[in-house]
Amino acid sequence: MDASPLELSPWEQAFIEMQRVARLATVDEQGRPHIVPIVFAFDGRKVFTPIDAKPKRVAPQQLQRVRNIQGNMNTAVLLDEYSEDWSALAWVLMRGRAKLVDYGHEQEVAVALLEARYPQYEVLPLAARPMIVITIQHVSSWRASG
Amino acid sequence: MDASPLELSPWEQAFIEMQRVARLATVDEQGRPHIVPIVFAFDGRKVFTPIDAKPKRVAPQQLQRVRNIQGNMNTAVLLDEYSEDWSALAWVLMRGRAKLVDYGHEQEVAVALLEARYPQYEVLPLAARPMIVITIQHVSSWRASG
Repeated sequence: MDASPLELSPWEQAFIEMQRVARLATVDEQGRPHIVPIVFAFDGRKVFTPIDAKPKRVAPQQLQRVRNIQGNMNTAVLLDEYSEDWSALAWVLMRGRAKLVDYGHEQEVAVALLEARYPQYEVLPLAARPMIVITIQHVSSWRASG
Repeated sequence: MDASPLELSPWEQAFIEMQRVARLATVDEQGRPHIVPIVFAFDGRKVFTPIDAKPKRVAPQQLQRVRNIQGNMNTAVLLDEYSEDWSALAWVLMRGRAKLVDYGHEQEVAVALLEARYPQYEVLPLAARPMIVITIQHVSSWRASG
């Protein structure tokens, strides 16, 4: 259980902070990957993303990402920006282990960080929502101009 | 080997066509997911993406996505658009089996489709590049306003 901050370059740190959306990959029991776009917050070591109140037609425990995490905690979070100028392309990939957190300190930290980043949560209260919490173990990045 | 076109709604078809970037997830031998942003073309059944000429510092066979596909052909391709208006959010997820194609008819189709979509390839010739070809088996989609 390493809770120390990751070593990120100033560029990586700024790039992560700037992104409004990320993509989360998980793996099912048959070894098949799944991806969803996520809103997220990052505290320097952990990525937080809500199972949120947007209508999903299914209960939180039934979401593919949640079932996958319960069977295989390995996840990847990609941050990237597309540009028609391919010399401006860049991405940061964070890989780590995910768990579902329903309540307690980590859930409250997640709520506070997400509400600070996304004004949309003023009208979509997060308070009681389960969170996916991913402890990042490895970061890689790439820049076309790097 | 089902080569018939997938059944896509007109909305899904238009959404896929409109996207300039997608995210590709693969899985390594330890069951850990990996994601990269990709440029792509789609012919109604297969997704094509090049191992392209941008400097990657490593040979094609050494790329994580290629090593992963050689061990586990299951892949997922996500198309999505972020908006600060969360009622406009939408995504299409395509899942299928990938292979690496170095030459022949499929490689040539991929070159033609990618060159038609991306004017950037006028100065970055694709002709001899290996392609990842993903035969899509399952499509799911979501719209906040759906």
